[in-house]
Amino acid sequence: MGDTVGKSANGTATNSNDHLIHSEDPLHPANHICTLCAKFYTLGWVTGTGGGTSIRHGEHIYIAPSGVQKELMRPTDMFVMDFNTKEYLRRPDVHKPSACTPLFLAAFTRGAGCCIHTHSQWAVLVTLLVERDFGRDACFEIEEIEQIKGIPKGKGKLGNLGYYDRLKIPIIENTAHEEDLTGSLEKAMEKHPDTFAVLVRRHGIYVWGDNVHKAKTQCESLDYIFQLAVEMKKLGLPWTT
Amino acid sequence: MGDTVGKSANGTATNSNDHLIHSEDPLHPANHICTLCAKFYTLGWVTGTGGGTSIRHGEHIYIAPSGVQKELMRPTDMFVMDFNTKEYLRRPDVHKPSACTPLFLAAFTRGAGCCIHTHSQWAVLVTLLVERDFGRDACFEIEEIEQIKGIPKGKGKLGNLGYYDRLKIPIIENTAHEEDLTGSLEKAMEKHPDTFAVLVRRHGIYVWGDNVHKAKTQCESLDYIFQLAVEMKKLGLPWTT
Amino acid sequence: MGDTVGKSANGTATNSNDHLIHSEDPLHPANHICTLCAKFYTLGWVTGTGGGTSIRHGEHIYIAPSGVQKELMRPTDMFVMDFNTKEYLRRPDVHKPSACTPLFLAAFTRGAGCCIHTHSQWAVLVTLLVERDFGRDACFEIEEIEQIKGIPKGKGKLGNLGYYDRLKIPIIENTAHEEDLTGSLEKAMEKHPDTFAVLVRRHGIYVWGDNVHKAKTQCESLDYIFQLAVEMKKLGLPWTT
Amino acid sequence: MGDTVGKSANGTATNSNDHLIHSEDPLHPANHICTLCAKFYTLGWVTGTGGGTSIRHGEHIYIAPSGVQKELMRPTDMFVMDFNTKEYLRRPDVHKPSACTPLFLAAFTRGAGCCIHTHSQWAVLVTLLVERDFGRDACFEIEEIEQIKGIPKGKGKLGNLGYYDRLKIPIIENTAHEEDLTGSLEKAMEKHPDTFAVLVRRHGIYVWGDNVHKAKTQCESLDYIFQLAVEMKKLGLPWTT
Repeated sequence: MGDTVGKSANGTATNSNDHLIHSEDPLHPANHICTLCAKFYTLGWVTGTGGGTSIRHGEHIYIAPSGVQKELMRPTDMFVMDFNTKEYLRRPDVHKPSACTPLFLAAFTRGAGCCIHTHSQWAVLVTLLVERDFGRDACFEIEEIEQIKGIPKGKGKLGNLGYYDRLKIPIIENTAHEEDLTGSLEKAMEKHPDTFAVLVRRHGIYVWGDNVHKAKTQCESLDYIFQLAVEMKKLGLPWTT
Repeated sequence: MGDTVGKSANGTATNSNDHLIHSEDPLHPANHICTLCAKFYTLGWVTGTGGGTSIRHGEHIYIAPSGVQKELMRPTDMFVMDFNTKEYLRRPDVHKPSACTPLFLAAFTRGAGCCIHTHSQWAVLVTLLVERDFGRDACFEIEEIEQIKGIPKGKGKLGNLGYYDRLKIPIIENTAHEEDLTGSLEKAMEKHPDTFAVLVRRHGIYVWGDNVHKAKTQCESLDYIFQLAVEMKKLGLPWTT
Repeated sequence: MGDTVGKSANGTATNSNDHLIHSEDPLHPANHICTLCAKFYTLGWVTGTGGGTSIRHGEHIYIAPSGVQKELMRPTDMFVMDFNTKEYLRRPDVHKPSACTPLFLAAFTRGAGCCIHTHSQWAVLVTLLVERDFGRDACFEIEEIEQIKGIPKGKGKLGNLGYYDRLKIPIIENTAHEEDLTGSLEKAMEKHPDTFAVLVRRHGIYVWGDNVHKAKTQCESLDYIFQLAVEMKKLGLPWTT
Repeated sequence: MGDTVGKSANGTATNSNDHLIHSEDPLHPANHICTLCAKFYTLGWVTGTGGGTSIRHGEHIYIAPSGVQKELMRPTDMFVMDFNTKEYLRRPDVHKPSACTPLFLAAFTRGAGCCIHTHSQWAVLVTLLVERDFGRDACFEIEEIEQIKGIPKGKGKLGNLGYYDRLKIPIIENTAHEEDLTGSLEKAMEKHPDTFAVLVRRHGIYVWGDNVHKAKTQCESLDYIFQLAVEMKKLGLPWTT
């Protein structure tokens, strides 16, 4: 590695290490995060610079920056962090790091390869409906919907949930500052060790998976289920039998 | 045919026969399934790797694999089965065959040229509304909607349903494993010999047609009708007069 | 004009006159109908081969055929009719002429340059809500919505409706065969000489305008208003003050 | 500047000054307004030629014309006004200036760099719900929704609203002519000096920001919040705690 990493006084890397974000491979994390975020924009998940996506690539964590239009991102917008030292290897001068970073790291620490954060309106509505109808401590629970089979049984367990399994997604309360969610997110992960997602009340959802394919598939499946659940409520149909 | 089909111990073909999936023609099944699935993704029919599509091409059955992102499929992802022997002529190593395969075959056995399986939320909601309002044995029924004219009268019958004909789509109960739907799907096909579609409760729909054009058109028309029917319920409007 | 028009025994032109549909100009009717229909497909107006579009170009009427996937149309799919003789100058062998043709001609006879027919679900729902809430003879009526200003005052009248004008769109009953709508469409046009659109109960809408730009703009404005009106009903908000 | 600005008798510039709208830079206002409006069309904000967008570029104001299909705009369609003299430097012969112009200028006078006007159905519905439930003088108010953090605290104030801040958007009554909104828009701006948006009853919204990025982000965030608020009403969920 011919590049030198210049460190500033506060320990963050300066804007060299551009080789980390240049690749011809569309599946390289620096490129992949851009195409994923553009797709997520059309799904309404990252409207108004909301939401974010992060990919672990060996010991490097690639993270979309804060406050950028997610459908217009380019590889040069990307932050790259060393997973072991938690120091930035690349840090674009014009951007702020994502406040989601400690939440993404919580997922990577538990073995995830990709973590997606959306502001999906269906996720937000589901957190409000659960609070009103089942109380503040309740999880979102639904059963006997085929798409549940898109969610894995749990870390280290083989295969996905079955049609007759009940899907349970924990919900944590929102905080004034996104990084302050980290503690309760980690607690929810510990209390619900099989979950690959945590809803955040009045905010959205964090979904992670072993790799990009799994995280995206699980995020899509959950969003499908949340939208269905909201429509079911409008029609007076119960979530569980 | 110069290619040799290598058979593995369990009778499945190895990954040769690539000539079956290479064509410059965008309407060749290996290409066509990819463009169809990409379109179906934007319609919300195959979210989270759900759903599937299969085309019969002479004695060859082309089938989208299980568990792939349907909007990103490539011809090389395709399974090809011999319709007579039910053996795979081509089987991509990296994928699992679709659990929908026996259901697609049930349609092809009855003369279909294409079969589409979606997880459309409108289809799922309609199965729930029918169960609640008309009972578990009821079909979805609607009448006097112009789009009904997009559905053929029945196999071997000339022309499509008329505006004053009642559209009836049978509904079967979901099972833990998709392949276990085959028996009840075939029973529904026998009990309702004129239908080109069967709804699966809490799951989605199977739609087939004489060819790709007809299967897609019928699937679109039905999905339009299901969405309309759900909106009608929200507004307190009855499905039949 | 070097082409010869071969006439068949029943008076229809054979498939020559291809020069009528070949043009480099994207705004030539044969090209324009294709791009318009592809856009209308994404708006949900022509799902399942439903709906249609026709443009008058001097004495030539260009008409999208029946039963084709509207988002995939090509100039070679187009029918061309002589406005004066009502004979086809070009008639693709593989397609059937649109059953909407006499309805399009009714609009062209009254001076329209373009006529659009959609199966929009919002239009269908509005016809059902008007029937239930205001009776079978009622028009759709709404007032004090800014988008009403997208609709012209009437043929031969200068300018568009104002914000305080009440928008009135007549509704005719659907018939078993689309061409049988012609009589009641013409009656509605005579009874409501200022209208540029007629709703068809449980079916959709016909919208026309002096040219493509106006017909499309009016069709979009009306569809916006119908969707808003349906949402207003769901929320218990009245259409008129 | 080699071009000469020919002035017509009534003080408007003739159609020279084309250099003002020719640039290779996709972020040049003449290009940027076109790509923005095409995106806004897909979001349902500028249906039927409704809505508009304007960018301040130094002392030049770029404005999308009235009555054009917003998804098809080209740089040559653009009006350019001198901010100081309020005279048109470029005025396309075939178009009418936007009736929104004085409203855009009201925003630019208060320091905005970009102003977006949409006819979003969610905005319109919110104005109707506020009137019915909270009275004609009420603002739209919502709290404890994460996306509120996408809206700045106010002109000259550092940073954005927090999660526990209440978002308040003033609503003005619609008028017969768009330009007549200017007075009440300016009054609302004075009464609510921190707002970056004003809703117009039964019409839509004006959103502005320091630059294009901020105006677009704020407009998206607000539209997300309005859609969520409408869905909350349908589900019986309150906007404030």
